[in-house]
Amino acid sequence: MKQIIESWIDEDIGFGDITTEALIPKNTIANAKIIAKEPGTVAGTEIAKYIFESSGLRVAILQKDGSQVYANGTIMKIKGNAREILSLERTALNILMRMSGIATETFNVSASAKAVNPFVKIAGTRKTAPGLAKFDNAAIAIGGGETHRFSLDDMVLIKDNHITAVGGIIKAIEIAKKRVSFTKKIEIEVENSKDAALASKSGADIIMLDNMSPKEIEDTIDILIDFGLRDNLLIEVSGGINSENIIDYAQTGADILSLGYLTHSVKALDIGLTLSLE
Amino acid sequence: MKQIIESWIDEDIGFGDITTEALIPKNTIANAKIIAKEPGTVAGTEIAKYIFESSGLRVAILQKDGSQVYANGTIMKIKGNAREILSLERTALNILMRMSGIATETFNVSASAKAVNPFVKIAGTRKTAPGLAKFDNAAIAIGGGETHRFSLDDMVLIKDNHITAVGGIIKAIEIAKKRVSFTKKIEIEVENSKDAALASKSGADIIMLDNMSPKEIEDTIDILIDFGLRDNLLIEVSGGINSENIIDYAQTGADILSLGYLTHSVKALDIGLTLSLE
Amino acid sequence: MKQIIESWIDEDIGFGDITTEALIPKNTIANAKIIAKEPGTVAGTEIAKYIFESSGLRVAILQKDGSQVYANGTIMKIKGNAREILSLERTALNILMRMSGIATETFNVSASAKAVNPFVKIAGTRKTAPGLAKFDNAAIAIGGGETHRFSLDDMVLIKDNHITAVGGIIKAIEIAKKRVSFTKKIEIEVENSKDAALASKSGADIIMLDNMSPKEIEDTIDILIDFGLRDNLLIEVSGGINSENIIDYAQTGADILSLGYLTHSVKALDIGLTLSLE
Amino acid sequence: MKQIIESWIDEDIGFGDITTEALIPKNTIANAKIIAKEPGTVAGTEIAKYIFESSGLRVAILQKDGSQVYANGTIMKIKGNAREILSLERTALNILMRMSGIATETFNVSASAKAVNPFVKIAGTRKTAPGLAKFDNAAIAIGGGETHRFSLDDMVLIKDNHITAVGGIIKAIEIAKKRVSFTKKIEIEVENSKDAALASKSGADIIMLDNMSPKEIEDTIDILIDFGLRDNLLIEVSGGINSENIIDYAQTGADILSLGYLTHSVKALDIGLTLSLE
Amino acid sequence: MKQIIESWIDEDIGFGDITTEALIPKNTIANAKIIAKEPGTVAGTEIAKYIFESSGLRVAILQKDGSQVYANGTIMKIKGNAREILSLERTALNILMRMSGIATETFNVSASAKAVNPFVKIAGTRKTAPGLAKFDNAAIAIGGGETHRFSLDDMVLIKDNHITAVGGIIKAIEIAKKRVSFTKKIEIEVENSKDAALASKSGADIIMLDNMSPKEIEDTIDILIDFGLRDNLLIEVSGGINSENIIDYAQTGADILSLGYLTHSVKALDIGLTLSLE
Amino acid sequence: MKQIIESWIDEDIGFGDITTEALIPKNTIANAKIIAKEPGTVAGTEIAKYIFESSGLRVAILQKDGSQVYANGTIMKIKGNAREILSLERTALNILMRMSGIATETFNVSASAKAVNPFVKIAGTRKTAPGLAKFDNAAIAIGGGETHRFSLDDMVLIKDNHITAVGGIIKAIEIAKKRVSFTKKIEIEVENSKDAALASKSGADIIMLDNMSPKEIEDTIDILIDFGLRDNLLIEVSGGINSENIIDYAQTGADILSLGYLTHSVKALDIGLTLSLE
Repeated sequence: MKQIIESWIDEDIGFGDITTEALIPKNTIANAKIIAKEPGTVAGTEIAKYIFESSGLRVAILQKDGSQVYANGTIMKIKGNAREILSLERTALNILMRMSGIATETFNVSASAKAVNPFVKIAGTRKTAPGLAKFDNAAIAIGGGETHRFSLDDMVLIKDNHITAVGGIIKAIEIAKKRVSFTKKIEIEVENSKDAALASKSGADIIMLDNMSPKEIEDTIDILIDFGLRDNLLIEVSGGINSENIIDYAQTGADILSLGYLTHSVKALDIGLTLSLE
Repeated sequence: MKQIIESWIDEDIGFGDITTEALIPKNTIANAKIIAKEPGTVAGTEIAKYIFESSGLRVAILQKDGSQVYANGTIMKIKGNAREILSLERTALNILMRMSGIATETFNVSASAKAVNPFVKIAGTRKTAPGLAKFDNAAIAIGGGETHRFSLDDMVLIKDNHITAVGGIIKAIEIAKKRVSFTKKIEIEVENSKDAALASKSGADIIMLDNMSPKEIEDTIDILIDFGLRDNLLIEVSGGINSENIIDYAQTGADILSLGYLTHSVKALDIGLTLSLE
Repeated sequence: MKQIIESWIDEDIGFGDITTEALIPKNTIANAKIIAKEPGTVAGTEIAKYIFESSGLRVAILQKDGSQVYANGTIMKIKGNAREILSLERTALNILMRMSGIATETFNVSASAKAVNPFVKIAGTRKTAPGLAKFDNAAIAIGGGETHRFSLDDMVLIKDNHITAVGGIIKAIEIAKKRVSFTKKIEIEVENSKDAALASKSGADIIMLDNMSPKEIEDTIDILIDFGLRDNLLIEVSGGINSENIIDYAQTGADILSLGYLTHSVKALDIGLTLSLE
Repeated sequence: MKQIIESWIDEDIGFGDITTEALIPKNTIANAKIIAKEPGTVAGTEIAKYIFESSGLRVAILQKDGSQVYANGTIMKIKGNAREILSLERTALNILMRMSGIATETFNVSASAKAVNPFVKIAGTRKTAPGLAKFDNAAIAIGGGETHRFSLDDMVLIKDNHITAVGGIIKAIEIAKKRVSFTKKIEIEVENSKDAALASKSGADIIMLDNMSPKEIEDTIDILIDFGLRDNLLIEVSGGINSENIIDYAQTGADILSLGYLTHSVKALDIGLTLSLE
Repeated sequence: MKQIIESWIDEDIGFGDITTEALIPKNTIANAKIIAKEPGTVAGTEIAKYIFESSGLRVAILQKDGSQVYANGTIMKIKGNAREILSLERTALNILMRMSGIATETFNVSASAKAVNPFVKIAGTRKTAPGLAKFDNAAIAIGGGETHRFSLDDMVLIKDNHITAVGGIIKAIEIAKKRVSFTKKIEIEVENSKDAALASKSGADIIMLDNMSPKEIEDTIDILIDFGLRDNLLIEVSGGINSENIIDYAQTGADILSLGYLTHSVKALDIGLTLSLE
Repeated sequence: MKQIIESWIDEDIGFGDITTEALIPKNTIANAKIIAKEPGTVAGTEIAKYIFESSGLRVAILQKDGSQVYANGTIMKIKGNAREILSLERTALNILMRMSGIATETFNVSASAKAVNPFVKIAGTRKTAPGLAKFDNAAIAIGGGETHRFSLDDMVLIKDNHITAVGGIIKAIEIAKKRVSFTKKIEIEVENSKDAALASKSGADIIMLDNMSPKEIEDTIDILIDFGLRDNLLIEVSGGINSENIIDYAQTGADILSLGYLTHSVKALDIGLTLSLE
């Protein structure tokens, strides 16, 4: 992770912060504050701290990851060489703004969902910014959400193409159980209640109901209950869920609602840095 | 750039795509299409192509970077080993969706602005996702926007802290001219028309009017014209510009409008991959 | 993976194969055979092929990964520049010998176990050579074994220290269920039949019986069956299992036997390369 | 070397030690001991120390590299954040167990050999685990052995293919002397006493007697002595030497016995970590 | 930059400083001085300091970058583990000698030029040693020179091939203005006074007069002045300028003289290290 | 080596060759010639070829490494995408110019020396540009010189500090023989004929006479011959040798003359690239 963060800094600094090197005297000391310009859920402070500390700056976190910050609330304070602070400002703010944006939306949508179903979990997906899976997922967790697969080795997730290739749900689960390490769960995407029942019977740990309406989801869950196939089974729902329709999906009784937009369409939290030279 | 893209793939694949390895026979050949699920400006196809080709797949781009695609329009076709396609799908879509989202918004906001001022340019900022400056900026250019500084060595950009440190605008520009390579332009942030005039007189190449209202911007430009200081000067405006108020800013006569949200708050273009096994 | 393999080659070649560069004319073509000097299960041929092909050599695999090779059996043939073959020989043989050694022992011990219990699985552990987890585990899979966790993010595995820290088995499983992603299985180490029952009741997916005698394992499994807690539960056994006592453990009815020595104490398969210059 | 060790840690931790993060409170302090479960020669403590210290843990080495440890002897003590200790445990033990295994076998086989010939040296080969040449060779040195070539640029080692390519031993040595830096020694593999004499006469620094019986080796050395060609010449013997026949080879009067199995077929020393939470 | 410096150290140390490890006791403390053996301009002390400090040594810089040092003047003092100092000596001296050599020549040639034209600037080029652009350019700046483009993204520099491709100077500048970010300056190479005038009129920020005689340069500048095209234009001269003819070029009235030999044909400053063991 | 070369290209291209991308149409094909502007010994063509070929260009080498090229002689031809050629031009020329400069000086100074002593060898030192040891040494070898140690693990080289630390020449050689691998030669720096004799007697493979006058060197060699200590001993001379005094040193009868300036003070060979667009 350190190498990734250093590559961000290198990318932004290039051959040097030519403005700051020309204009700020070498040993100038400064105090800086990182301030939220709008309310939200703070995330990424440990990363920002690492960025500043790696250049010898002193950092105090006032609002830890997961805190609710108000507009104009101070998140962090930094003290030390002014050149270093100015050179690292953008990189630190970029990750803070993105992670806090993700955490804020996760927190809000999760609150809406839990108001109608306290047991439902909000999860992310693998639709992150390229190279930022670790950070995007961490932000979801900080916002009170559940992480999904970080990478393709995390869990078996059987989709329609896999089912077609082997000739059916039963066969697909059977092969996965045989060929994949016992340490991995098996999830399978199903399109109707019949297939959901089949998957549960065949030993899937999780079924994914993709692009179903809340009504269809409820019906499917009812059928699974009727047949005694709801226990020991997790039900994940995905496809087109957003902050506007989250309540409809939360009420279906599904266990997990996974939302791609949490990480692929992030609205950054507005955060700035103010600096005063000593 | 190759190393960055490979690090994305490594991150997403981890120790292997365990589902696909278990269920898709080793030598299965498949045809895949990458399809836009909503209209927009395509960007990132060369990157996606590189991702697939690096594993020996054959790729045809149907909608080049910069094309306007309709809903259900096919952007690319891929042919080759089914396992490889499935293992690379997410990484390729993630970058395509992000870059196309950026290009689409840039194209739209640029069109609005140019409708009222054909000479105005829409630019990005350094508020990109960490590690993605190259890709986020490329997407802006593909969408018809102008790239700003990629990194801190690209141009001198003197902000209030720099001015405070050296004691004034004239002094700041003078020092920058003396200490920084002749190959670099000098831009300076100013807060009022008096400072704008001062900066232009002192030889700034570009002035940035930050967080001014359209009215204030217009007034400032008028004063610069009156004093014969508008020529040989580029005027950049930033702070709070978005798709709703873009026209007001475009009409001010400024040269460049820079918009942070283009890259820090991206709405991904919805793009999917469909696959048929041979 | 490519970067790792290239780092092996770099390490072995250093500033150049000074002997070969001095003595073998630049454009000499050679044919080489990679030959097993003792019988065993072949593993690592795809890696060895990649090593040779990365320098433009032509490679044919005669004995695929998983094949049983006899003494003096030819595993691969290589044709091309003699200098390249000689410079890469050692790196290719080192990985082939190690992976085939692991696969051979896995195959043999697995055969012994399955002779008395066809349902039992032989698994590896995280006790691999540092940096070689991917390769050591691949060799186990090729030998017919089951891979365990590749890394610490693969599954929850609760050990005594974790249990102590939270104050008991029930609590530990409860917290893990709450805090860890729904995509992960939960395994817990237990020391006696009472704890095994408790773990199963609390919803553990897998229990690990560590350092128990075959008799104790059997008793524990009987108790689990008696209480109706054997279904939906995988039982892993580890600690001191080797080729000599494998049958005793296989007969206990456990699902998985995990063997650290498969990767921490590898006996390489003896493999050599013969070369004839054209 | 730091980068290699960090890559091991990254490989083992992946996206995080999910068990420990869920169950061990963030600021828990723990004391750990690393304990030998069987007697042997300790090696790798500096590496293990580096692994723990890189995460801010405090480490005391009780048994330095090269010490003889008894069963249940404490090798190292670690104090600090419990999460860090648990996350690094496996990586540290894996390298310690491997290096100590190599050092132990080197020490034992070297003791046997030196009992009958105090001047003989036990050496390793390039048959290490891929990527671990530095560590495997260090372990041999710690065990009292002699390191051989680390990589192909360390010394000229002329084998049969090289001789064939240039047309004879005299010619091969002559060319090597001419083309290779004066800083490098020249060793040549010979198959009989005549060639051994020829090589010595031609100025080889070392001859390697490969796959000869102890009797043949002795005869060859006698002939070299008779012809006055033994001085200024080192004699290395390799091929099939192991702990059972080491004495026969040691008695031949050869200078160096090189043993491939020391690094390609390592029996790890059994070492564990016990932890107590504060 | 840290990674680059570490790669130099790794390259020079390889598998270890075998001489020092054999002969200098492990905990020997030493004092070392880095001494100039001839007078010159010191450059690279911060890099050398980083090299020594990265291994825990204590460093004091007596002659900062840019100082004029006399023969036998002490540049730095180092104290700490003798093995570390000896292992790092060569790497530190190599960069110090190169950078100081560049700074010395830049300082001298710049002094000659400024004696006849105090406004002229001496600049480097991209003709650096491969991989050392950052360091070579830093040395030029320390010597009082001006850095040119570090890399191809720093500024538009239109050469004859570019002009040919688009069909003329006016067109080339027009396209560059349109397609390249507003943050970048535009320089164009011209071959005669007519093209120089054309370029200035078309809005070039800088013109480069390549391989012209001092007389031709003066004439060209006169014409530009006559036509009122000299203001707002920087004039760079390059091609065959060296310490012998620098005065002729400095007197032409050009703004920048760029000298390739400053970095492609470096005469290292002779610097040594003396060490005394405690 | 590939990674190093790619890092040079990345460094020089940065975020892109903005001039070429703006002005040269995407699919333009061009022919280029690399031409020597002065006579010299060509070196680095394989590296330059790799640079161009890595971007899909076709390359023909007309003057191989080691050839003597005349002024205006064509070294290489390149054909392919014009953008790629222009973007890679500088990186390729920089390494070609440096390596050819080193090879040319090595060739010339070696010719002078061999004219008076055909057996003497010209060697380089470790005083290379940082990070370029491999390339600088290769250039020396191409120019007909001898490479010295590439890195500190190549050979034992005992200097005054090492001798002081252990208390004398005899002791130093004895310890080195005991502690360092038998594969390594032992060289020792001596300051007078007495120590030279001592070193030879103690079994040094090479002695280095540092900073002695030709007369002192001759005397030392005479004494070694008188005492029968000249055979089996290589004599290296270094310190202040250059093209002007090389004959004096060559006539002393030493085996190797090592010259630091060959790599620390390189005069690049002037080489250019001409391009014609199709």
